[in-house]
Amino acid sequence: MISVAEAVDHVLKHAHILPLETVSFTSALGRYLAEDVFAKEPLPPFPASIKDGYAVIASDGAGTRLVSSASTAGDEPGGCVKPGECVRINTGAPVPEGADAVVQVEDTLLERSTEDGTTELEIKVMVAPTVGQDIRKVGSDIAEGEKVLQKGQHLGPSEISILATVGVTEVNCFRQPVVGVMSTGNELCEPGSGLVPGRIRDSNRYTLMAALREHGFPYTDLGIAKDTPDALLGMMRSALDQVDIIVTSGGVSMGEKDLLRHVLEKDLGATVHFGRVLMKPGKPTTFATLVHEGRTKLFFGLPGNPVSATVTCNLYVIPAVNKMSGSSSPQRTIVKAKASETLRLDPRPEYHRVVLTWTQGSQLPEARSTGNQISSRLLSVNSANALLLLPPGTAEKTEVAAGEILDAMIIARL
Amino acid sequence: MISVAEAVDHVLKHAHILPLETVSFTSALGRYLAEDVFAKEPLPPFPASIKDGYAVIASDGAGTRLVSSASTAGDEPGGCVKPGECVRINTGAPVPEGADAVVQVEDTLLERSTEDGTTELEIKVMVAPTVGQDIRKVGSDIAEGEKVLQKGQHLGPSEISILATVGVTEVNCFRQPVVGVMSTGNELCEPGSGLVPGRIRDSNRYTLMAALREHGFPYTDLGIAKDTPDALLGMMRSALDQVDIIVTSGGVSMGEKDLLRHVLEKDLGATVHFGRVLMKPGKPTTFATLVHEGRTKLFFGLPGNPVSATVTCNLYVIPAVNKMSGSSSPQRTIVKAKASETLRLDPRPEYHRVVLTWTQGSQLPEARSTGNQISSRLLSVNSANALLLLPPGTAEKTEVAAGEILDAMIIARL
Ligand SMILES: [Mg+2]
Ligand SMILES: [Mg+2]
Repeated sequence: MISVAEAVDHVLKHAHILPLETVSFTSALGRYLAEDVFAKEPLPPFPASIKDGYAVIASDGAGTRLVSSASTAGDEPGGCVKPGECVRINTGAPVPEGADAVVQVEDTLLERSTEDGTTELEIKVMVAPTVGQDIRKVGSDIAEGEKVLQKGQHLGPSEISILATVGVTEVNCFRQPVVGVMSTGNELCEPGSGLVPGRIRDSNRYTLMAALREHGFPYTDLGIAKDTPDALLGMMRSALDQVDIIVTSGGVSMGEKDLLRHVLEKDLGATVHFGRVLMKPGKPTTFATLVHEGRTKLFFGLPGNPVSATVTCNLYVIPAVNKMSGSSSPQRTIVKAKASETLRLDPRPEYHRVVLTWTQGSQLPEARSTGNQISSRLLSVNSANALLLLPPGTAEKTEVAAGEILDAMIIARL
Repeated sequence: MISVAEAVDHVLKHAHILPLETVSFTSALGRYLAEDVFAKEPLPPFPASIKDGYAVIASDGAGTRLVSSASTAGDEPGGCVKPGECVRINTGAPVPEGADAVVQVEDTLLERSTEDGTTELEIKVMVAPTVGQDIRKVGSDIAEGEKVLQKGQHLGPSEISILATVGVTEVNCFRQPVVGVMSTGNELCEPGSGLVPGRIRDSNRYTLMAALREHGFPYTDLGIAKDTPDALLGMMRSALDQVDIIVTSGGVSMGEKDLLRHVLEKDLGATVHFGRVLMKPGKPTTFATLVHEGRTKLFFGLPGNPVSATVTCNLYVIPAVNKMSGSSSPQRTIVKAKASETLRLDPRPEYHRVVLTWTQGSQLPEARSTGNQISSRLLSVNSANALLLLPPGTAEKTEVAAGEILDAMIIARL
């Protein structure tokens, strides 16, 4: 049985970055850039006023100015300020030629205006201005030709903003893998159908699809496969044309495992990289790859227990999707947390569902167990935002004490 | 000028929880429950085998058994195990009446099968079984009538799983507010249009919409309003019918501020709760409410600088959306982090863009500044996943030293 670290290595080694595709900047949210992005123009593209006031010539000093015209935000830059004159200007408006400072209206006095009072004719600058005052210089935020985003960068809201700012409305990103989600088992029925004797409702497919959706990853629902070679092979075959990753759950009992392995290895020619991992829960996790029409497809066979499926999805599937999407740090974030109670250690490394809470008084978050961790007991993932990484127990160390500091893997938006 | 804490109080006081609506369980992702959810049936609904093996009567002890039939996952529970007999069973299959233990196949020997070798007729149980062994009892995961989810709970992937498990495919959740996003300014043009002299591209609308989309919140694009009372009023009026919250950005210079306040107070009859907040960046933030057709609508006037807009969106808009959606802890998570360099303090409390990184050697994450924090400098939010909360500087304390521990507000998925 391999360790979790070895299993993750296998997965990331085979999770190849997908080819790039050109997407609209609004659809680029959550993607990874496949190119550097440069600013074609400087920002601001013209000298812009930071205040409402008057564009002046600094060397005119304090004193009276004739108001020759006005420059409003959105106006084309134009006009020219001559010695002794000024131009009424508002925030964001272009500073006219000749002017080299803006005096905010609070530092001026109105001396004379038109008879109807609507237009200023003369003002008095109370404090001698300095050159450049309250002007955003051309290119002061972004220089012409500056690299504003880097190949490989994740595009969050702020990076979308940068694309909008520099007018790059189409951008090359790595394609995101499409994940096909399937459940297996004759006993499974749809959540909406009445419960027939001997059946239970399929929940894993919906959990896995929700987890992918929550991350903004594309996925497709492959349905429920019956426990027969034909059913499994048929569904896998048709899925291979549509998806990059197939995630199944269930099929881990002895007969089913043989069935799955047979379909993967014999029928589809896949290579099984591992079939069991030293972890709790999630031991019977299978990872395989196969080449279909020249492309490597990933296959994850997750356990059928809902908790195991959630844990292994976080440990293996999400990092694989991240990596294939172009992320250079595809694994989940690990933080330090303080156990809030005594926890018995299992002989296997355990991924224990916890709620992390940061309180004002403490430097580290407290990790509160969600209770009974039997892997079939779905209620134990209820509200969990992290997995506490419990080391394997030994004869010397059989439990973690309350207050002990451990690693915790973040699995939800904080 | 009010403090950030006071401003947040104002916002949360007016952010009323919206009425409930019934949604499909798959659309419930990210919602808050408006009702408790109970299990109508026990889980498992029948005694289920945990192993591949034989359903036996424990008191028969070790020894030979006649194999009377088989129970496969998905079969209707049926048949009956008589003393001295057993039933072939696989994982997830119903345990037949009479049987009170399952013996895994590894603990048995095949004694006799049909001539063609396909069906077992007699097996030997090697180890005396105990009552209940390898059987998931009815209701052992979820009891009939058990409360599985609580009113007010956030529905993440695991909670969607619970809904699927108990067959609750329609559920009452609080409605999520629809946020209308608008930019204001004559100088703004669409990112896709060529840059006309005097204009700059609008980026804030796209940032704000991306931030909302990333959280799974509903929003609508209200476009760009010109700096005239008619344009602003017209756009606001038509937005009020469609949205619960209007977020504008820009319009903070003196003349524009008057314009906005006039439209809000005089034309729309809104109450302005604050117009300036003691913070950096984001000082000129306006918050107002108005009643439109019997419903309270929220209005946020965020600064036009992209960094200020991002910071104030995280501080005020996201918590308002969370609260209206039914969250009982609508504010962003605050963690402790260690400053990685010396940072000068501003007289105002500052929300400094940082990248938090957790490293193996350290208990607390390191907060690395994204550089020059001038509020117009969009590149400073590039890759930021948190805002470091810098206290206001004083004569005694003018800077934060490298290694000092501060609060940091998480603004991205970790
Ligand atoms: Mg099965
Ligand atoms: Mg403006």
